Amino acid sequence: MNQRIAVPLPKAYLLLNHGPTVLVSSAHGERRNVMAAAWNMALDFDPPKVAVVIDKATLTRDLIEASGDFVLNVPARAQAALTLAAGSESGRGMDKIVKVGAGTTAASRVGAPLIDGCLAWLECRVIPEPHIQKTYDLFLGEVVAAWADPEVFSNGRWHFPDSDRRSIHYLAGGSFFATGEPFEV
Amino acid sequence: MNQRIAVPLPKAYLLLNHGPTVLVSSAHGERRNVMAAAWNMALDFDPPKVAVVIDKATLTRDLIEASGDFVLNVPARAQAALTLAAGSESGRGMDKIVKVGAGTTAASRVGAPLIDGCLAWLECRVIPEPHIQKTYDLFLGEVVAAWADPEVFSNGRWHFPDSDRRSIHYLAGGSFFATGEPFEV
Repeated sequence: MNQRIAVPLPKAYLLLNHGPTVLVSSAHGERRNVMAAAWNMALDFDPPKVAVVIDKATLTRDLIEASGDFVLNVPARAQAALTLAAGSESGRGMDKIVKVGAGTTAASRVGAPLIDGCLAWLECRVIPEPHIQKTYDLFLGEVVAAWADPEVFSNGRWHFPDSDRRSIHYLAGGSFFATGEPFEV
Repeated sequence: MNQRIAVPLPKAYLLLNHGPTVLVSSAHGERRNVMAAAWNMALDFDPPKVAVVIDKATLTRDLIEASGDFVLNVPARAQAALTLAAGSESGRGMDKIVKVGAGTTAASRVGAPLIDGCLAWLECRVIPEPHIQKTYDLFLGEVVAAWADPEVFSNGRWHFPDSDRRSIHYLAGGSFFATGEPFEV
């Protein structure tokens, strides 16, 4: 279970605007999976859209193409090891969500699950663009529901309460940055 | 002028992998411009590709469509006010690069200039995809040259030397995060 409040859709882009690495969750039939994706971005404000790269070798790709939906989960620093594991192993032949130790909660408008313990969640429906999916592994989605843990995001603002509950930014080889100091100009 | 070293192309994705906000510079004929883009991401490793959202109302859009190239410049925290100004004003009817106080250096393989004082630079050629350009303002580019200030990035690793020379992550309304603490899992 997650403590969460709805984020108004025109504010959903703020969950991704600072470039965090996300977990992509997916499900179809009896199968489900989770992978990590540093290559994600907001694509529009209202209705909110996102873009994410989903390699064609992945089980996630199969599930998203079959179901037409996915969730972008914004993991906390406390979930960095889970995020690395989700990005390093294939979900074929096992339930990777169980393997990485993640709990899940049902989403509200899509079949893909919400990964428990994350900071925010964007429920997305694929906007079919077969040419760019095939050529670049690039998927576009419309955000149909968005949620955040109110202890870290509320009223359109991030306010990380401690070092474990911050978003993270993957580099390579197990190296991350935490989201750092906020400042105004 | 910038102190800079070439980044091997298969390592260029590392300049964007942690989700920094970038400056997009462009030029065509006598005109040139700079804008800010939080909505950018790496799209492939080798040859490296990127994706960036360029609104159709912008002068940058006109220049990129005319020239077929652009540069993604990774600004430093010391350039946050410049980045906000580049993202807030239109370049129509003026030289916004001068207005925001940026110096430039010629790029090596594209016509768009490098913005001085940044941490890293990705010289990109547009991969023409007219449908997604028109429908989503989404531009894909192949990175044809990449550079970094060796005091902040070398041998495939970021190593920010101080609080001013860090990358930044834009949110909204003048609010940013600095790239934070590195950690390994």
